[in-house]
Amino acid sequence: MDYAKEAVKKHAEWKGKIEVVSRVPVKTREELSVAYTPGVAQPCLDIQKDPELSYTYTRRANLVAVVTDGSAVLGLGNIGPLAGMPVMEGKCVLFKEFGGVDAFPICVQSQNSEDIIRAVKEISGSFGGINLEDISAPRCFEIENRLKAELDIPVFHDDQHGTAIVTLAALLNGLKIVGKKMSDISIAVSGPGSAGSAITRLLLKYGVRDVVMCDRTGILYTGREKLDWSKTELAAMTNKRGLKGGLKEAMKGADVFVGVSGPGLVDGDMVKSMAKDPIVFAMANPMPEIMPDAAAAAGAKVFGSGRSDFANQINNVLAFPGVFKGAFQVRAKAISEGMKIAAAEALAGLISAADLKADYIIPGPFDKRVAPAVSEAVAKAAVKEGLNRI
Amino acid sequence: MDYAKEAVKKHAEWKGKIEVVSRVPVKTREELSVAYTPGVAQPCLDIQKDPELSYTYTRRANLVAVVTDGSAVLGLGNIGPLAGMPVMEGKCVLFKEFGGVDAFPICVQSQNSEDIIRAVKEISGSFGGINLEDISAPRCFEIENRLKAELDIPVFHDDQHGTAIVTLAALLNGLKIVGKKMSDISIAVSGPGSAGSAITRLLLKYGVRDVVMCDRTGILYTGREKLDWSKTELAAMTNKRGLKGGLKEAMKGADVFVGVSGPGLVDGDMVKSMAKDPIVFAMANPMPEIMPDAAAAAGAKVFGSGRSDFANQINNVLAFPGVFKGAFQVRAKAISEGMKIAAAEALAGLISAADLKADYIIPGPFDKRVAPAVSEAVAKAAVKEGLNRI
Repeated sequence: MDYAKEAVKKHAEWKGKIEVVSRVPVKTREELSVAYTPGVAQPCLDIQKDPELSYTYTRRANLVAVVTDGSAVLGLGNIGPLAGMPVMEGKCVLFKEFGGVDAFPICVQSQNSEDIIRAVKEISGSFGGINLEDISAPRCFEIENRLKAELDIPVFHDDQHGTAIVTLAALLNGLKIVGKKMSDISIAVSGPGSAGSAITRLLLKYGVRDVVMCDRTGILYTGREKLDWSKTELAAMTNKRGLKGGLKEAMKGADVFVGVSGPGLVDGDMVKSMAKDPIVFAMANPMPEIMPDAAAAAGAKVFGSGRSDFANQINNVLAFPGVFKGAFQVRAKAISEGMKIAAAEALAGLISAADLKADYIIPGPFDKRVAPAVSEAVAKAAVKEGLNRI
Repeated sequence: MDYAKEAVKKHAEWKGKIEVVSRVPVKTREELSVAYTPGVAQPCLDIQKDPELSYTYTRRANLVAVVTDGSAVLGLGNIGPLAGMPVMEGKCVLFKEFGGVDAFPICVQSQNSEDIIRAVKEISGSFGGINLEDISAPRCFEIENRLKAELDIPVFHDDQHGTAIVTLAALLNGLKIVGKKMSDISIAVSGPGSAGSAITRLLLKYGVRDVVMCDRTGILYTGREKLDWSKTELAAMTNKRGLKGGLKEAMKGADVFVGVSGPGLVDGDMVKSMAKDPIVFAMANPMPEIMPDAAAAAGAKVFGSGRSDFANQINNVLAFPGVFKGAFQVRAKAISEGMKIAAAEALAGLISAADLKADYIIPGPFDKRVAPAVSEAVAKAAVKEGLNRI
């Protein structure tokens, strides 16, 4: 199927992929008087006395804003907020269909970080959580950090943390296949943007000790010229062996390759240079850093990508619906590292030892067990850390 | 029924009066690839080239933001944005159920005009129109005027213009009952807030020549001390006879009383002092300026109020769903005075000469003809004025 052509046709027919509907009857004067005036005055006054009751009397308890400025949409780059809307609506569809979470797309006109932060804060009372989406690095880090600090509802940049959760889950199972331990492996990460940064941070948090990151210029190391603040931070927490050079040097002897960069950056020789039984997650979209057949021919033991037409699709949809569902279940104040790890472990745990194979390390997107398992794990982790409000 | 008690119980059960749902199937990989990646990239790129296509490919063509800062909610006053949310959700329900228009509630945290303007502008790309709601005067005027000037989508403060439309409609039919002409009558308006201001402006636009407005202090006249800028403007365009004094003086000899002020401000003697066959619209909520039986006893020929338990309910729900529906049908750039007048005339026209009676001058809220008639008239008026974009 020509997806581009079909999508244009369908999008014109659909007239929007989401819809705001009523949950209440207003067919009679009595019903109108309960749902609206005069009855509605009492819930309003109750919320005025106790703002927490906004979660009881309005939809915000199950409602996430999908916020973008359109600066890094899919692989399309900075196409602007209006042009990003079809993706945001699609994301809202996935939230609802996969997690039962209501989601509403907000496209912010400005691409200035302060403007975005201000706008999201102003409208935050309408929502129970904020999902940042397709905002370019390094602004996305600042925006997320500030909103996390200044709001009391979960703020989650899916391009970072959704990807990190699913990558960790895939790696947990991939390591079982190759019989290696998280604390022993070395990992080469290509692409220190939003996804690469969050993956690296989560893996380090989980106990990985040896990560080497590369951007277009080459390996990140402390003191390298022209590093932005985000890459400076990443350089400081990675590359313990003090490597210099390019992706070739970074991958040499590595147990795992994680690509969140660009098409075709890895060739067979680079995979051959990795440690025994290498794991290759080539997640650039739509064209991965190396195709699965080439990786396999070069000895890759486990291969994952972002594509639905290859095995082991490392797909955010496995994470975000369940993460917010779980956070909302306990009205979590935030989504912590512990909650993300719990999500990854739950996701990995869905594949039994008997079912686990090199080409089945992560559930498919339509696996009905995913969102319930992830949400349950996330809710439990929130309670364990005291982040729950109910 | 104890509406307050029932509303609290129902609101807790409902867990939100609105819900965001998917309009598209995502049950298979193929469907996912059309609604989301990779297919969605093409509609995005098309919008990037032609921003108007956001109306074709996303929901904004039928989507209005119901925006409040919670500063003047119902008769409850400044209860704040969070506490105002149940009303906003109720409003969204009415938009959908009465007009088929999707509406989403946005509660802005700040009550500073500049902050509200900035926030609404930032998120405006997600919507096809902005309905301002329950924002106190005179800030509401400034916010509306600025947003109208700075956005290319309809901006409508319903407390002003919805009320004005329905009042004009009721007056059109009320005057038929008493056999008077719009150009000959004198009108006393009690309450120069958002509703009173808009009613007065629309009536003057429609050809009324003699309006006298009162606030708590008394009649508005040019030169009166401590008038804010809005009342100064209203004083300049009303009170041609140069009256001074209170509501009593304003009502003496008046053909029509319009109350959008407070309970019990009018007594029988004041109605008796009006011209022959007076029309009394006592719209303060929930307690009108004078009760219908007292007004009738004092000689009121036609009585209207905001209440559903009296005849002639002058209710905004007769206007806003159809107004936005009509504006959206032709993708109007704005909602003009002409479009409001068309809405009022359409509304009045729904009651045939044969059906018209003193206690039936305006359709009831559940009259199925209302939204179609209003939307058709509004769309036609927009086209006539060249405000349509399709």
